[in-house]
Amino acid sequence: MTTRVACIGAGTVGRAWAVVFARAGHSVALYDTDPEQGTRALAVLETTLQQLQAAGQLHEAPSSVLDRVQIADSLAAAVSQATHIQESVREDLALKRSVAAEIAAQATPEAVIASSTSALPGSDFLTDIAGPGRALVAHPVNPPSLIPLVELCGTTLTDPETVEATRRFMDTLGMKPVVLKREIDGFLLNRLQYTLVAEALHLVGEGYCAAEDIDRVMTEGLALRWLSIGPFATAHLNASDGFAGFVAQLGPMMRRMGLSARTDYEWDDALVAQIHEDLAERMPVSRIADWQRWRDGRILAARHTQIAGAADQPERSGDS
Amino acid sequence: MTTRVACIGAGTVGRAWAVVFARAGHSVALYDTDPEQGTRALAVLETTLQQLQAAGQLHEAPSSVLDRVQIADSLAAAVSQATHIQESVREDLALKRSVAAEIAAQATPEAVIASSTSALPGSDFLTDIAGPGRALVAHPVNPPSLIPLVELCGTTLTDPETVEATRRFMDTLGMKPVVLKREIDGFLLNRLQYTLVAEALHLVGEGYCAAEDIDRVMTEGLALRWLSIGPFATAHLNASDGFAGFVAQLGPMMRRMGLSARTDYEWDDALVAQIHEDLAERMPVSRIADWQRWRDGRILAARHTQIAGAADQPERSGDS
Repeated sequence: MTTRVACIGAGTVGRAWAVVFARAGHSVALYDTDPEQGTRALAVLETTLQQLQAAGQLHEAPSSVLDRVQIADSLAAAVSQATHIQESVREDLALKRSVAAEIAAQATPEAVIASSTSALPGSDFLTDIAGPGRALVAHPVNPPSLIPLVELCGTTLTDPETVEATRRFMDTLGMKPVVLKREIDGFLLNRLQYTLVAEALHLVGEGYCAAEDIDRVMTEGLALRWLSIGPFATAHLNASDGFAGFVAQLGPMMRRMGLSARTDYEWDDALVAQIHEDLAERMPVSRIADWQRWRDGRILAARHTQIAGAADQPERSGDS
Repeated sequence: MTTRVACIGAGTVGRAWAVVFARAGHSVALYDTDPEQGTRALAVLETTLQQLQAAGQLHEAPSSVLDRVQIADSLAAAVSQATHIQESVREDLALKRSVAAEIAAQATPEAVIASSTSALPGSDFLTDIAGPGRALVAHPVNPPSLIPLVELCGTTLTDPETVEATRRFMDTLGMKPVVLKREIDGFLLNRLQYTLVAEALHLVGEGYCAAEDIDRVMTEGLALRWLSIGPFATAHLNASDGFAGFVAQLGPMMRRMGLSARTDYEWDDALVAQIHEDLAERMPVSRIADWQRWRDGRILAARHTQIAGAADQPERSGDS
């Protein structure tokens, strides 16, 4: 079913969401308080759609997808007929609060109001709006046009049906939603990411290795597994009797690593500057845009590999 | 230059190392105290080589690679003419000590003695052998025939030239070595892996999400980035002014995540059993071998994607 979706905020995240909704066939109203941001968005959208087409991940012409995206003149015009509203304004609590209240005042009572916030708990700005049962966090990974994960997290007042309906809607968009059962700072992705980064800062800061070594451990080691199976599944498949057998054997080592991790390591500006210099030698700041394009191409290629692999998974049921 | 390499221990890791050395053109002597293990190894090697060939990652017939691998009758026969000796026996300190001593007694003084240990510090079993300057840890990711990362770590007595020569040798094999500047429990890969897993156990144990959600966050989210750029490079490319700019903006969030991570979370048998059940529903224990084959195929495909991507990286130098 085609629906009308509103994207509020036309920065990097809002624009990428517009691609996600429009390529799935929905009509999208994109609104930004800065009219120039809206105009710029259409050009960026076209580039993203061309990238997706070149990677075989778009099943129609970029121009026909783009035809479904309109720049709205006002927030009210964008949201008034929308069934899903995706808010992606700047990470500023006061701003998020006022935008959420305005959306709630202009939207229909049935519309879902989803915030892209990556770091603010939804209960801090989505609970004192009109109809808080219809509001939740839908945190994407930047950019959602290339990376399918989205974290859904209700507030203390979100109606469970809102979460479930949004999960189903995200599924139809080709996104891969996970649902948090309750709120926690950083949701899942940023907690996992920055817990690992905290230990990495400890290892570099204490002189065990260079920043480049950390990146290499990930690209040439762990990510080759984690692209198809996550960390729990990795352990499950590393023992002939599954996860329980793995832990029976390697549990003591797992505990030792957890207990000796220094995620509270006090990194300072000097360490940040040192890591920056190491990175800038490989990827000069003046070439970051080139490297971002390369990265996006690599994400598309990795996603392509994943999609191909999903097709030949062993059957879930049917013991052999 | 073709050299003679010895692989001591013909289990999963030792066999995969034999593939790494033989496919690079070296002649390999494989020894295991259990003669049946040696015979079985040759059959497994052939399967691995066929997989690599099918994935376009082997540039000659599997049989000609296999011709370079011989099963040795004794440890002495395996190591006496070898220039690199890779020890991959069971993770048992007493066993590692006695095997290391025996290798050192039989090998030439110039031979490098490398242990595949993943959890034992080399200084606990490689320092009181004859010629400890030539011994170090070369910890691979299982299986090294598919995953190129290898962690090199000297003991308190390792000659720096041994580490440097081994790094160069690993490079010629197509492996991707990282060198630790000093010893730490778990080296880099297992510290990063199990620090993240510890926080994941906290999130599942405290009911924020299911085990499957953690795996999904990785496969559909973080790994899509980390396959081409590691965690530090990810941050560097997520700000127009690089890593320093990223930390200036998001440093407080990074610190909050590190400080609130619960890597000391006391997971218990009940949690392990619950995660095992979740995993076994997706991947029944009776089908683990099928899933391992699928995983290996996915690792090969991901590696293929990586190799293709390395070719079109922006140039390192030359500002635009």
